[in-house]
Amino acid sequence: MQALFITFEGGEGTGKSTQIKRLGERLSAAGHTLVVTREPGGTPEAEAVRRLLVNGDVTRWTAKSEALLNYAAREQHLEQVIRPALAREETVLCDRFMDSTRAYQGYAGGCAPAFIDALEQAVVGPTRPRLTLIFDLDPVVGLERARTRGDALSEDRYERKGLSFHRKLRDGYLDILRRDPKRCRLVDAAGSIDEVAESVWSIVSTFL
Amino acid sequence: MQALFITFEGGEGTGKSTQIKRLGERLSAAGHTLVVTREPGGTPEAEAVRRLLVNGDVTRWTAKSEALLNYAAREQHLEQVIRPALAREETVLCDRFMDSTRAYQGYAGGCAPAFIDALEQAVVGPTRPRLTLIFDLDPVVGLERARTRGDALSEDRYERKGLSFHRKLRDGYLDILRRDPKRCRLVDAAGSIDEVAESVWSIVSTFL
Repeated sequence: MQALFITFEGGEGTGKSTQIKRLGERLSAAGHTLVVTREPGGTPEAEAVRRLLVNGDVTRWTAKSEALLNYAAREQHLEQVIRPALAREETVLCDRFMDSTRAYQGYAGGCAPAFIDALEQAVVGPTRPRLTLIFDLDPVVGLERARTRGDALSEDRYERKGLSFHRKLRDGYLDILRRDPKRCRLVDAAGSIDEVAESVWSIVSTFL
Repeated sequence: MQALFITFEGGEGTGKSTQIKRLGERLSAAGHTLVVTREPGGTPEAEAVRRLLVNGDVTRWTAKSEALLNYAAREQHLEQVIRPALAREETVLCDRFMDSTRAYQGYAGGCAPAFIDALEQAVVGPTRPRLTLIFDLDPVVGLERARTRGDALSEDRYERKGLSFHRKLRDGYLDILRRDPKRCRLVDAAGSIDEVAESVWSIVSTFL
């Protein structure tokens, strides 16, 4: 089975986690050995960095610090989890990856694209996802979903950044999609769980 | 009083902290308003990053992750402490700064110089120290001093990196000195506290 690296991107409340589970079940049934992981996180060290990022006061970190912390966690995750899994020819499903930094800290947070580019090149290098699913949803709907799902474990620092931030975030993701249409695919996240799962599968199956 | 930004660099056990106190007393007596601070650290967020860096297993972070974490802490420190202090025309004495990342993660840790350059340019930008004192000492002596001083509060992750790491570190600092002789000055750290304090003062006084 060929190694496949798929990342899931999008704003808050777009249903990525649910869809990763659904896709994972389908890929397992199809015989894939899966590594299902997330960012920031995926290793003990990277999860320690995650706790610094997702909790506490909205303004506690500058966007530049957030980008650097995310990339420190990403470097650990790549070295200890993602690259070894791909070397074993396993399929990696990752909830958020490099595009989250570009969208949250770049487009929405104001970090210069050249700074994000330099981090991406130095840390991700050639280990780019083969497919990135961008879950698109009106942030008014997404933030309301995120508020009511109750499973956020109070990791709500980004949700508290306000609607204007989340509108820039959505536009940022759409721009990432436009700039890399070969790797990125849009998923309309407004439908039911079953509908979205079918959209995801129809895209992923063309990559198998 | 004109703003003056002085950084103190060098390996473990070279006596920087003691000399910062001595210099601080002398500058205070001369009428300077001082901000005495350290890296990684100097703000609550940056100190949280410091705890991740200076404790735990020697191999827990890659050198690249360490550089990114140090720069996340540095960005917070610059924005919240150093730049505001310099804007108030205060004198800033900082125990470790950008050259520590270049020496520890670059020269000794193996990170590419271009990566360190990119971080330095994006985060430090024009806020470079006016004067950097590089405390030079045989690492065999420095590590022994560090082991016996007993004030390390168990922040000894870097001390445990071994002699070969610390030899590369010393050579790295000497190379930094050669490349930027206008900003950097060597301090022979082998003498007594009083002797080193006199060396420091003879250099600093020419910058006042």
